Amino acid sequence: MADILELPQAGTHPIAVQRGEHAHRIVLSSPPANALSVAMMDALMAALAEAAADRDCRVVVIAASGKLFSAGHDLKEITAHRGDPDRGRAFFETTMRRCAELMQAIVRHPRPVIAEIAGLATAAGCQLVASCDLAIASEEAAFCTPGVNIGLFCSTPMVALSRNLSNKHAMEMLLTGETIDARTARDFGLVNRVVPPEYLGTVVGKYVRTIASKSAATVKIGKEAFYRQAEMGLADAYDYAASVMVENMLARDAEEGIGAFLGKRKPEWTHE
Amino acid sequence: MADILELPQAGTHPIAVQRGEHAHRIVLSSPPANALSVAMMDALMAALAEAAADRDCRVVVIAASGKLFSAGHDLKEITAHRGDPDRGRAFFETTMRRCAELMQAIVRHPRPVIAEIAGLATAAGCQLVASCDLAIASEEAAFCTPGVNIGLFCSTPMVALSRNLSNKHAMEMLLTGETIDARTARDFGLVNRVVPPEYLGTVVGKYVRTIASKSAATVKIGKEAFYRQAEMGLADAYDYAASVMVENMLARDAEEGIGAFLGKRKPEWTHE
Amino acid sequence: MADILELPQAGTHPIAVQRGEHAHRIVLSSPPANALSVAMMDALMAALAEAAADRDCRVVVIAASGKLFSAGHDLKEITAHRGDPDRGRAFFETTMRRCAELMQAIVRHPRPVIAEIAGLATAAGCQLVASCDLAIASEEAAFCTPGVNIGLFCSTPMVALSRNLSNKHAMEMLLTGETIDARTARDFGLVNRVVPPEYLGTVVGKYVRTIASKSAATVKIGKEAFYRQAEMGLADAYDYAASVMVENMLARDAEEGIGAFLGKRKPEWTHE
Repeated sequence: MADILELPQAGTHPIAVQRGEHAHRIVLSSPPANALSVAMMDALMAALAEAAADRDCRVVVIAASGKLFSAGHDLKEITAHRGDPDRGRAFFETTMRRCAELMQAIVRHPRPVIAEIAGLATAAGCQLVASCDLAIASEEAAFCTPGVNIGLFCSTPMVALSRNLSNKHAMEMLLTGETIDARTARDFGLVNRVVPPEYLGTVVGKYVRTIASKSAATVKIGKEAFYRQAEMGLADAYDYAASVMVENMLARDAEEGIGAFLGKRKPEWTHE
Repeated sequence: MADILELPQAGTHPIAVQRGEHAHRIVLSSPPANALSVAMMDALMAALAEAAADRDCRVVVIAASGKLFSAGHDLKEITAHRGDPDRGRAFFETTMRRCAELMQAIVRHPRPVIAEIAGLATAAGCQLVASCDLAIASEEAAFCTPGVNIGLFCSTPMVALSRNLSNKHAMEMLLTGETIDARTARDFGLVNRVVPPEYLGTVVGKYVRTIASKSAATVKIGKEAFYRQAEMGLADAYDYAASVMVENMLARDAEEGIGAFLGKRKPEWTHE
Repeated sequence: MADILELPQAGTHPIAVQRGEHAHRIVLSSPPANALSVAMMDALMAALAEAAADRDCRVVVIAASGKLFSAGHDLKEITAHRGDPDRGRAFFETTMRRCAELMQAIVRHPRPVIAEIAGLATAAGCQLVASCDLAIASEEAAFCTPGVNIGLFCSTPMVALSRNLSNKHAMEMLLTGETIDARTARDFGLVNRVVPPEYLGTVVGKYVRTIASKSAATVKIGKEAFYRQAEMGLADAYDYAASVMVENMLARDAEEGIGAFLGKRKPEWTHE
């Protein structure tokens, strides 16, 4: 984003948050692996909550510093807890629950969340990309779910993956553990767009500005409705979506937006 | 279609119906916008019901006159009702309910419904394309769900869109409101085929003749089963589809069709 | 596969089973049609059960001898039973139930099942491909669901097809009955990869070796979880997948695999 109003937080904090105009850019900042340790997941959850509470934030970007977007769960942390009296069960449950909460916090976030991927995204790192509403990748990005290589099937990543990719594509990634390049990820539906590395920030910024120019109240209604109706049968989905749309029509921003459109003027959105 | 047995209805009726051999071609005829006003939706529902009742109609085509396929809901009509004592709520409810009924009438129609798109299909116009069983587009066609630009998220269009496109593609269209060209629509799974504008009618006609040559009774069984099983889990879907297939095997047209195939002769279908 | 430890079974048995290193290659061996007669389906079910019971088998390949992969149900067998006192109903029910069981036996099989398609796969033969976890096709392969041409809609094939293809692609195949080539099948998501005919065996063998090198216990956990979570809403899917992953972490092969990865050594998997 062009206008960074706040510098990344220094020190050992696992993430940095850059606040641009109408957007928070959350940067995974524990290179080289940017592993999703419990501390990293907690920090991400906190940053997402902060973005949701900031009335000026209309889009969230999740990016990473270094060559790796994220290598997924922190295997050293996991291994360290094998020495616990319960062989790590309690810690593993905390980790997996936290991970599931994080991914669903993205889906349920009132603002669109865009993944900006410059490098390799593996396992839960790949799940993070799949969980975002949009994903823009550098040509140098790559993706894999290699848990099967270490005896730990990517079972939670598959939840997000299989809701974006067709069965055979998802199964190929999950069963072989092999890495796909950015173009293949685009063909599979995992990312929206692949751009030269030097333009990644520019293109993400363009998406941010486009979405930030819309009514935030309307985007919030629509994003929530999207994921809710997706789990319904057709008749229920239409009943639900029709009622959402009636309320949306009666809300101030639709009246303003339609009036502006018919009057050929620029709309003035509610500052939600 | 090559053989038009009935000329388009003249006057201010919002649609025209061309009856070709074994097909009804319903033409949105309120250019330039071909907006889905309540009158237009009522006319479409009536034309679909007529096609279903016509024993000689085996395929329905939905096309449009003018450069725009359809611009979606009629914003002027919507705005006019903001002056109602209830601020338009009753009218909005009627509009959205009617729209949901129309789209489901296509899905539940006993005949395959093909969208023939020569130009721009936006919002509920794009939903109309997504709701058809097949869609053939001119290279000059384009598609968008731009409600977000006017403060009114395309929440009912998303129901049809998200049942045809992958999540990230649907979200890109819904969140940015931007227009995709015909080839992108094909890559996204929104349309089956993209053809030069001068061949659009020819190609649609070919699909019509191909499908009209099948047993109408069989096509009806299959189309209904397709959308019903899609909402079930795998085991239930197989139980249901297996029972459908047993009844289909016992029906006259399967006996005739299989006999004709084994006897290397042309089948004579039941005139349903 | 490079190492065939057992020659194909001779005689009139409808299939042959080649046992390679860590894999069973089940070959449909009733050319020219390789029809899915009841005897063929019974033989396939038995071979799948045998592969599941063989502790050394880690991958199953389903291939075919001759130019046709499989032409689907045996129309002569079906027609012969029209003379039964019940006009064939009992036989049709047996056929369809057996077919549904076979396809679900592939989905529920503890080992990944790969379809290796050298030629034409039609109707239930196409369903067989769609039901496998992965599918590798020769450039000379082709696919269709032509039941509609003989008055018998491919209603059970559609169950597998529509869980792999987008609605409009599936509908095009089902309504027109037309044949798609291997590249189109790849674009539609029906097969993973298209290779020159002379490399088909080599490429399938590469997939077999890749998957066979993983922990069989882990692959089994993951495959089962994949299809189960796919039928759940997002929240339930995450609850379920998280619990699967905790148990997986506590299992021996994950401890070994993660340890080996951190220790930069080759893992030694449990011989399940």
